[in-house]
Amino acid sequence: MAINGKDLISLKNIPAETIKLILDTAEPMKEIIKRQIKKVPTLRGRTVVTVFYEASTRTRTSFELAAKYLSADVVNIAAATSSVSKGESLKDTARTITSMGADVVVLRHPMAGASELLARTVDASVINAGDGAHEHPTQALLDLFTVREKKGRLEGLKVAIVGDILHSRVARSDIWGYTTMGAEVRLAGPATLMPPGIEKTGARVYNDLEEALEGADVVNILRIQLERQRQGLFPGLREYAVMFGINRDRLKLAAPDALVMHPGPMNRGVEISPEVADGLQSVINTQVTNGVAVRMALLYLLTGGAHIEAAY
Amino acid sequence: MAINGKDLISLKNIPAETIKLILDTAEPMKEIIKRQIKKVPTLRGRTVVTVFYEASTRTRTSFELAAKYLSADVVNIAAATSSVSKGESLKDTARTITSMGADVVVLRHPMAGASELLARTVDASVINAGDGAHEHPTQALLDLFTVREKKGRLEGLKVAIVGDILHSRVARSDIWGYTTMGAEVRLAGPATLMPPGIEKTGARVYNDLEEALEGADVVNILRIQLERQRQGLFPGLREYAVMFGINRDRLKLAAPDALVMHPGPMNRGVEISPEVADGLQSVINTQVTNGVAVRMALLYLLTGGAHIEAAY
Amino acid sequence: MAINGKDLISLKNIPAETIKLILDTAEPMKEIIKRQIKKVPTLRGRTVVTVFYEASTRTRTSFELAAKYLSADVVNIAAATSSVSKGESLKDTARTITSMGADVVVLRHPMAGASELLARTVDASVINAGDGAHEHPTQALLDLFTVREKKGRLEGLKVAIVGDILHSRVARSDIWGYTTMGAEVRLAGPATLMPPGIEKTGARVYNDLEEALEGADVVNILRIQLERQRQGLFPGLREYAVMFGINRDRLKLAAPDALVMHPGPMNRGVEISPEVADGLQSVINTQVTNGVAVRMALLYLLTGGAHIEAAY
Repeated sequence: MAINGKDLISLKNIPAETIKLILDTAEPMKEIIKRQIKKVPTLRGRTVVTVFYEASTRTRTSFELAAKYLSADVVNIAAATSSVSKGESLKDTARTITSMGADVVVLRHPMAGASELLARTVDASVINAGDGAHEHPTQALLDLFTVREKKGRLEGLKVAIVGDILHSRVARSDIWGYTTMGAEVRLAGPATLMPPGIEKTGARVYNDLEEALEGADVVNILRIQLERQRQGLFPGLREYAVMFGINRDRLKLAAPDALVMHPGPMNRGVEISPEVADGLQSVINTQVTNGVAVRMALLYLLTGGAHIEAAY
Repeated sequence: MAINGKDLISLKNIPAETIKLILDTAEPMKEIIKRQIKKVPTLRGRTVVTVFYEASTRTRTSFELAAKYLSADVVNIAAATSSVSKGESLKDTARTITSMGADVVVLRHPMAGASELLARTVDASVINAGDGAHEHPTQALLDLFTVREKKGRLEGLKVAIVGDILHSRVARSDIWGYTTMGAEVRLAGPATLMPPGIEKTGARVYNDLEEALEGADVVNILRIQLERQRQGLFPGLREYAVMFGINRDRLKLAAPDALVMHPGPMNRGVEISPEVADGLQSVINTQVTNGVAVRMALLYLLTGGAHIEAAY
Repeated sequence: MAINGKDLISLKNIPAETIKLILDTAEPMKEIIKRQIKKVPTLRGRTVVTVFYEASTRTRTSFELAAKYLSADVVNIAAATSSVSKGESLKDTARTITSMGADVVVLRHPMAGASELLARTVDASVINAGDGAHEHPTQALLDLFTVREKKGRLEGLKVAIVGDILHSRVARSDIWGYTTMGAEVRLAGPATLMPPGIEKTGARVYNDLEEALEGADVVNILRIQLERQRQGLFPGLREYAVMFGINRDRLKLAAPDALVMHPGPMNRGVEISPEVADGLQSVINTQVTNGVAVRMALLYLLTGGAHIEAAY
């Protein structure tokens, strides 16, 4: 069974059973990463092309390794050196890449909707690796996987998402994912960075950070993008740390076994204090490992997992 | 049989039978690209190094995938991050790369003659992936392959090449290739961008675009390089589109089943109108697929195809 | 047997027997590079990540090919496009990379001590591919391998190292390596570029270049970094060539069968004259081949060579 058609663009409108399928599939994938001999021939002869119009070593490397652990061929295209600089349209670039035989295109693009446009243009599977402030669904899936792995379930959990909700594609995908899986999502952050109408998603906005953290099972800390400060959207890094940074004292408001999560890269001392980042409740490094597992699962499912299961 | 020695530098002086061998070899290669399981072990243990002193995602990716579909190892070297910036000579760079065990070096360089210099310096096979305004032989080979595939032959066809002939390495290689294979080559474009003496190649210069298109079997549209405009070599993009852009009306002058070709990336609305680019006569995406097939054929032949045929 | 723990950071304090093990292991590796079919499955399923905070195509390509010849997966991370630009600490970057399943991290960093910091942070093996002006141990190992291969031994040989000793991580690693293996190390270069107290390493400083070359078995020429001139550390390239450049006349002072070595990329006509670079005594291209062999040996040994020997 493929997941909701050929692509993964958004977690909005993806049913719980599809998310469950992806998370279930990621479990054996994680075993592959942890084994001594990592490589399996599942995607041998398949080609994954990563196309990044914004630099993101973390996400690109995660997809690249996920594909290689499954024995796919990977080609990386960075916008800086691509035809983009020659003014070619995204559609033409997409057609070119898929005409060369790509099975999956992983796209990171500064424009919301870019992945969807691409998915409609080409026959290859498209995975959205972040499109503007819209969505970053694989990050949300790895978050869900990590929470389910540590807590045994998602339903009924209280998840606090803290930071710049407005510009965060991670927050947006997380909200859809957690909500669909039956968790309670609490949003906290500077009022200037809270998108109007966000409560329609089912998440609840808290004006008081302490209240949002109260008894939370998961504290999902967003990365502060330093360029927002220059834009005058929040006062300063120190002020941000004082008002919204998650430190040991604030973490005590959450459940004693609350998980601390961050999509990385962290600004230590700003949105997260070093002792929280490296503390016993932090599952930040586990998130990274799980990111590879979830992406392996997606590559497997999107390329038609079922009929190559025998070779697995 | 190797093709004309160990390298592919130019299509000038390459006999028709060698071109035919390459095109014939590309046919089964195309089948490999189109098959579900793409990888064959033909070049397992061989190493292809791409060395690009100019950015060209399209060409680099095509070679990279061609090599990977044949199971070769590929290493990409971009000039921006290479020893070039430390002032090392091309010869020393070449010797270094081949001392590491490279079997094939694919070179893109802004200087005409760079590939030939390299080929004389090293034992490895060298493929010219574009050297200044000199040649781009693999682009011409994929053009020939595409025309032969669609028309069943090359001999006797009327091929119009339209645009900036002066600065186009694609045009130069195309002229040699088409002429050698017995096609009639017609050149049209701004008078300031027509190289003096080009008729010695056997191609014919048309002052009138309409006349060049009259009954043509192939309309090969060149990319306008926007930097030429700044150099004052043609008046403006709109003027260019009006005078030399191929649109639906102009295309009607060609044979009803004429093929529309473009090496990409396209400037839609300048040298080619969107309805022509996406029209039924356009084989532009097929050219991209065929580019991979032709490069697979070359890699196979240059690394001594014959004695690994058994493993094929 | 692993070599001195899980990492290779420095040649200081590495015992002669460990160096001998690496050089011995590199011998069959060189056979693999030279064979027609280069690939062996030794590191299949292992992942090598190169992380370069400074551009070095030569070293990066050497490691990448070494890993690929052993069938490892390789992912390249260049600082320009990495999270580094987002301000993430080296430690966090390291944890991220190894959380994704990397077995070996190859690090080039402008800061002395960066590799050691990394090695202490992660469980993966770390290979220092150059850290500031500190060390570049794999370059020294390939130098040792090349001399041993050509001379049959290291003990008792006279090795002249000529150039900017102060800023050279190559010189520093070479000094430790040659000294440990019982060779006599002679240092010559501009007085402003001779580190005070360097004689404590066991090497001897020569104020007179001619004297240092007298009867030398190996002339190891360092690369002049052109930016040092701007810093006023030596008068000018021509003056440098006159005073310290190795040309045919100066080479005659060394033993008749002295080896000429250079880590590359060369500034021809500055620290080395073209006729010496391309002369019969030059083993510069051999050094490049041996660099791959030595790195293969290291990857093999650091990933626990012994228990996969059977698959070899």
